[in-house]
Amino acid sequence: MGTLRQDATTNEWVILAPERAGRPVPATPARAPVPSHEPACPFCQGNEHLTPPEIARSPASGPWELRVVPNRYPALAPGGTTDRHGEPLAREMDGVGFHEVVIESPLHDERTDDMTTDRVAAVLATWRDRYRALAAEPGVKAVVLFKNFGERAGTSLVHPHSQILATPVIPPDALHRYAVATRYFDDTGRCVYLDVIERELRAGERVVAERAGLVAVAPFASGVPFETWIAPRSKRPSFASVGDDDLPELADLLRDVLGGLRRAAGDPDYNLVIHSAPAGEESKPFFLWHLRVLPRMVTPAGFELGSGMSINTVAPESAARLLREALARVPVR
Amino acid sequence: MGTLRQDATTNEWVILAPERAGRPVPATPARAPVPSHEPACPFCQGNEHLTPPEIARSPASGPWELRVVPNRYPALAPGGTTDRHGEPLAREMDGVGFHEVVIESPLHDERTDDMTTDRVAAVLATWRDRYRALAAEPGVKAVVLFKNFGERAGTSLVHPHSQILATPVIPPDALHRYAVATRYFDDTGRCVYLDVIERELRAGERVVAERAGLVAVAPFASGVPFETWIAPRSKRPSFASVGDDDLPELADLLRDVLGGLRRAAGDPDYNLVIHSAPAGEESKPFFLWHLRVLPRMVTPAGFELGSGMSINTVAPESAARLLREALARVPVR
Repeated sequence: MGTLRQDATTNEWVILAPERAGRPVPATPARAPVPSHEPACPFCQGNEHLTPPEIARSPASGPWELRVVPNRYPALAPGGTTDRHGEPLAREMDGVGFHEVVIESPLHDERTDDMTTDRVAAVLATWRDRYRALAAEPGVKAVVLFKNFGERAGTSLVHPHSQILATPVIPPDALHRYAVATRYFDDTGRCVYLDVIERELRAGERVVAERAGLVAVAPFASGVPFETWIAPRSKRPSFASVGDDDLPELADLLRDVLGGLRRAAGDPDYNLVIHSAPAGEESKPFFLWHLRVLPRMVTPAGFELGSGMSINTVAPESAARLLREALARVPVR
Repeated sequence: MGTLRQDATTNEWVILAPERAGRPVPATPARAPVPSHEPACPFCQGNEHLTPPEIARSPASGPWELRVVPNRYPALAPGGTTDRHGEPLAREMDGVGFHEVVIESPLHDERTDDMTTDRVAAVLATWRDRYRALAAEPGVKAVVLFKNFGERAGTSLVHPHSQILATPVIPPDALHRYAVATRYFDDTGRCVYLDVIERELRAGERVVAERAGLVAVAPFASGVPFETWIAPRSKRPSFASVGDDDLPELADLLRDVLGGLRRAAGDPDYNLVIHSAPAGEESKPFFLWHLRVLPRMVTPAGFELGSGMSINTVAPESAARLLREALARVPVR
């Protein structure tokens, strides 16, 4: 018999059914080989004219190592207003916001876990800088920073990149998380995320890696196999608060976790998402920014879409153990 | 510029960005040809010994046309208790519940939209009967009925089948929907779903098909391209309330919608899910059972997973128009 586990940060139950891992599932196709330069790729060096005008770049002069550009097919765009129109049963508003792309490398085939820690730190610094800039824009209620790695993770371009969407409403998941965290803070005077992380550090079995200021854990109520959170170990509600001094450690840990995942879980496609306090709530102590790596080894089906409940066939304790073993084999850069 | 639309049944905003449909996306592979009998398939005729013992079958005697069996790799199973264990930050309970499979046809390759209306009605009658039986089991809080059609929809077996999961907790999506519907009922004395459907019938542009007691609509805040809801036009909180007299009309409409989708949208994989009032709340007037068809033409990526917010590139008005045109070409059986 499996187990139901409750995520204390959402109060939602997850079904943990390791026996179900025995059922036949379509094999994950091997990752196709990727060239280091692809003439038709709009993100490759030499094709800079194929993207909208640059918002930022690094380094400031000389050949670029990363660029930030507006998404050519934006889900949200500047202009318009946040006024609501229509009837109560059919409310609409302009699709106002920002949708940016961080081109993380001039090389078409470079993976985050193959980059040097310095290069990963430069990507993270750019994420942080753009996070700060977009959170400060009038009308922006939340900034969602994410990376889609591989076709099963929904990417449409192989070239290493991440995306930032600044939304004019607080997204539903965030609204729910903030409500739970606020309630917990009201009840206890503490941050539920920090309490969860302290508990994980004491329990130990789901800890993937530790650093002085950060921890990587396979959460107790993991929704998908090898789900991993990277979080600060002290009060940091917003990703905007990440300082330059924090970047090397964060880069090193992220690189390790992605390299470990590649070795432990058969190089799965994955999404990476940063959760952070809403814009304007950066100083509230109830939330804790954190980064989630969500491997896409299984396809959510009708049950998950219809119920919002996950069925996870890999216990986070097993995933954490395999990740720890694999981390020991990640080369240092 | 795109638009944000609010789903009145959840109060959640969806991003509608038709221009984004222009971006390059991986082509959907053509559906592989499927034989009508597959010797290794546990659901094919002659392989009845490969499934756990039958729970129900139809017709009662003679060769079977459909069978209900326990899932061989159940996410939840009978036995155990619904007592909660563990600390407040790490609550657990037994994975107690039911997980059944409805084998919808003896033929390995039969599709719902190719069946006669009578055969579809027999599948629906079985869903309804198993829904009633499982909702009445002690400890069951919700019954989730779904079908995964195609690999992108998460199915592991091609043979036509659907699944029923009876859960010992109310799933998060359902909890949220009931909260919104209850609030709306408290404010207005009416069912939000019936009000939404009446509004759609008045507006007309998102109506896909009408029957005397049912309607199929592309909802105002559709989360995915060609999302379609089939719902009763009068107070029916629970799927358990579907009567034998209602089945032919429902079967006919479902068959039409699936056939229309196949023709209008390039035969996409899809999930089908039935939403219904929680077990024990079947007579409460705030909810309305309905069936959702959720085509899997795009892969939800980091933004959707991290925010719970959808980006839909096909306006429901366009989808409804294409479906109406295609419906005119669905053959009558």
